[in-house]
Amino acid sequence: MKKYQLMAPGPTPVPSQVLLAMAQPIIHHRTPEYEALYIEVRAGLKRLFQTSQDVIPLACSGTGAMEAAVVNTLSAGERVAVVRAGKFGERWVEICRAFGVDVIELPAPFGETVAPERVAETLRTHRGVKAVLTQHSESSTGVLHDVRGFATATRGTDAILIVDAVSSLGIADLPMDAWGVDVVVAGSQKGLMLPPGLGFCALSEKAWARGAASSLPKYYFDLAEERKFVAKNEAHFTPPVSIVVGLREVLRMLEAEGLENVFRRHGRLAQATRAGVEALGLEVFPRATPSPALTAIVSPRGIDSEKIVAAYAQSHNITIAGGQGEMKGRLFRLGHMGYAAEFDVIVALSALEQVLADLGVPVDFGAGIRAAQKVFAESSSRG
Amino acid sequence: MKKYQLMAPGPTPVPSQVLLAMAQPIIHHRTPEYEALYIEVRAGLKRLFQTSQDVIPLACSGTGAMEAAVVNTLSAGERVAVVRAGKFGERWVEICRAFGVDVIELPAPFGETVAPERVAETLRTHRGVKAVLTQHSESSTGVLHDVRGFATATRGTDAILIVDAVSSLGIADLPMDAWGVDVVVAGSQKGLMLPPGLGFCALSEKAWARGAASSLPKYYFDLAEERKFVAKNEAHFTPPVSIVVGLREVLRMLEAEGLENVFRRHGRLAQATRAGVEALGLEVFPRATPSPALTAIVSPRGIDSEKIVAAYAQSHNITIAGGQGEMKGRLFRLGHMGYAAEFDVIVALSALEQVLADLGVPVDFGAGIRAAQKVFAESSSRG
Repeated sequence: MKKYQLMAPGPTPVPSQVLLAMAQPIIHHRTPEYEALYIEVRAGLKRLFQTSQDVIPLACSGTGAMEAAVVNTLSAGERVAVVRAGKFGERWVEICRAFGVDVIELPAPFGETVAPERVAETLRTHRGVKAVLTQHSESSTGVLHDVRGFATATRGTDAILIVDAVSSLGIADLPMDAWGVDVVVAGSQKGLMLPPGLGFCALSEKAWARGAASSLPKYYFDLAEERKFVAKNEAHFTPPVSIVVGLREVLRMLEAEGLENVFRRHGRLAQATRAGVEALGLEVFPRATPSPALTAIVSPRGIDSEKIVAAYAQSHNITIAGGQGEMKGRLFRLGHMGYAAEFDVIVALSALEQVLADLGVPVDFGAGIRAAQKVFAESSSRG
Repeated sequence: MKKYQLMAPGPTPVPSQVLLAMAQPIIHHRTPEYEALYIEVRAGLKRLFQTSQDVIPLACSGTGAMEAAVVNTLSAGERVAVVRAGKFGERWVEICRAFGVDVIELPAPFGETVAPERVAETLRTHRGVKAVLTQHSESSTGVLHDVRGFATATRGTDAILIVDAVSSLGIADLPMDAWGVDVVVAGSQKGLMLPPGLGFCALSEKAWARGAASSLPKYYFDLAEERKFVAKNEAHFTPPVSIVVGLREVLRMLEAEGLENVFRRHGRLAQATRAGVEALGLEVFPRATPSPALTAIVSPRGIDSEKIVAAYAQSHNITIAGGQGEMKGRLFRLGHMGYAAEFDVIVALSALEQVLADLGVPVDFGAGIRAAQKVFAESSSRG
């Protein structure tokens, strides 16, 4: 028996109690039962996004929600600046260009970030930049960008700040209103520990005002229309009812733990993972601040990282992820987000020691785990 | 104890074995396990859609798939004809107009249909009509449109036929290739007995060719891009994994029953429902061919149909649906699609007798059920 373990940077494991809640007989979305469910979810989402604005749910994946953010706040021919430092930064560029939005790229090599000063400089030197688009956690490189700094740069300018928080919502602190982030985009299958299929957009007043002037065509992703239904605790189109049922359970779990503790837990898991990996002589990939959602690790010299991913799967029944785009073969990525706890990190590192040894890398067995254990012992799980 | 029964025209009940399959630990979508799952689903979808083309799944509701059909086959300024005979016909009009497509409306009063000859006449008298858009089953009125006739009208013309089969796929026969339908749009939460959140588009060669010339902006719903991933048994963006897992179970159920028998079952349930309703002195709403997916019923004189819907819910814990749009208050609708069988019809009619009596309508108790029983006795469930 090899227990199946999902340790990829999303989708992430779904807690059993959430799976069972979703396995209850389906309810109709135009009933008092759904309305009661939605009222609770609506309030919980505001707290999770740390905003006074309504969060708009959409039946789509994270990419659909990214597209919704673009088509609702911009117009063809308008100019934006994109922090492009990984595959998901590239996705912002692709979406904008698909809709005729003029992109100024702010590139950084994979593993690095873009300094807020560069964003501020771009806004000073280029006229008419209507938005800055970025990831918070860039899942392809394991870097956490300085969204707070970007928000300082966009504040008081004509530009709105649009943040892909797909792999940071409920993982890394992102106080939308307090920092002045204008659009937060998220999905169900990362920090929210749900199956994929539910996306979210939350917009500031500045972003909603921009939406009124947006001329890009939209229907399914028309957030202003959807907002009217949210205000009535309804949905414009049929929502993914079962995932919304699961969302209520997840929001209750997160509230019981407390958002501060949720962020602290992810920070500890990430720190322990990095300590373990480095104790095994491997290199953590990010040169910039690492994301608490996942750890991207450089494959040992001479070893294709796809072999490490395959060994995790074949020898240990554990799903991790390899490198994406230009990093394919060079990186492997361990997720520690959502329904993830201390001993999941221990399992991931134990398997890593085994995998490396099987691939002929000299391993001091227990060294990775020891380093992680020390992190856990030295840091408190509660403040 | 009042057992909860979902008898609305979608979402429909999900079989327990499907709920439990979806409640298994979630798997990652870039793994051999998902590939094996998808290979089976891919083949099953072709048989279900009765086409040799790949069916493209999308993480969205039926409306998202409708939008995908439009933005992938048309360009702004092009002209189309829309069969508008209900709320979902109106939705085609709204989507087309949102994307700058010029609409010729072919209106019919709610409850009626548009004759294929009118479609043919429109194609003869208007130049440059690039597409005809219609529902197969119009859920708001309970009418089944003559898609076969429409396909005869579009065949050999420059127009493609785009059919919303959200409430007919796996319910009413729609042999896409044999009839010459160019785009079939469907969703997961009707005949497929799954939770909402998975949409589908299947395109003929004529429609794919049209897609190459389409200039409407798209990214999330770019079907040509998605098709490349389907060919590799993958998905471009994160798919709604749990619903795809359920889809495999549903496809197995439908194949075990046999598509012919699935269509015959729905026909019998609809026929029995109509017989029962008429035996109670009520009027079935459609003037045209009724859909086998649902029965729309005219509320007895002087009774707001919303009261009937409320009585089903409050007295019997059964969810049905009222009228939509201009039919609000005038119609109520009983669904008998997907995971629906003979005794569900008996339950719906039993409850109807109780509800009518409670609302002061004289009822010959058992009359509705008797009529339905006779239909079941006289028609065989297998050919």
